[in-house]
Amino acid sequence: METSPREAFDVFTRTCPSRSTLEHVTGRWGSLALGALREKPLRFNELRRRIDGVSEKMLSQTLHALERDGLVHREAQPTNPPRVDYSLTPLGGDTAERLLALIEFVEGRMPEVLAAQQRYDQRH
Amino acid sequence: METSPREAFDVFTRTCPSRSTLEHVTGRWGSLALGALREKPLRFNELRRRIDGVSEKMLSQTLHALERDGLVHREAQPTNPPRVDYSLTPLGGDTAERLLALIEFVEGRMPEVLAAQQRYDQRH
Repeated sequence: METSPREAFDVFTRTCPSRSTLEHVTGRWGSLALGALREKPLRFNELRRRIDGVSEKMLSQTLHALERDGLVHREAQPTNPPRVDYSLTPLGGDTAERLLALIEFVEGRMPEVLAAQQRYDQRH
Repeated sequence: METSPREAFDVFTRTCPSRSTLEHVTGRWGSLALGALREKPLRFNELRRRIDGVSEKMLSQTLHALERDGLVHREAQPTNPPRVDYSLTPLGGDTAERLLALIEFVEGRMPEVLAAQQRYDQRH
């Protein structure tokens, strides 16, 4: 009997490869890189400026992991000086769409979150 | 002029409080805790068993952060021995719904991700 993808991969299981892919997608820098690239393809330095606070090393690691997962496409342009463009693959675009729905939801509900934090801090 | 919530909070800005809330929601253990609690309210030890690999300390920190953000409700039952139930608040439920959409999408597309990883590893 064939198992469905949903049964075959389960992030709740420590050793499932989906857990590390989810971490690349939702990690601090991965999520912001996918969000930025959803707007348009960007060069490395444009990405660095867009993602406030990321170091060159962390952004490089982040983009390699997303490229390896098939979510980001890296294209070296034959220009002088050489230029590298990053864009989302179709799979990366579909992933980013769901991620952005979550991000925009959280941003939109921050007034409630801040009120909850204030109540919590008064009790503790 | 009033700004909309979408304009007022922006995860791309380093100091925006939405960035840390997003990290609680999408972090390794936070995302799995929200996912587990979306199925039903659970006690601490039930959560620990459900989330394969989490330590007691990390789960405790995770639940406190989610409670402070107003996403998780913590209720000490007046039983002997005392029992603490964790459940999602309405805001937590809405957040978990969007998070689960992302998780299930990633799980479902893992065959493509694994194929991309194989291609990447052959090239590098």
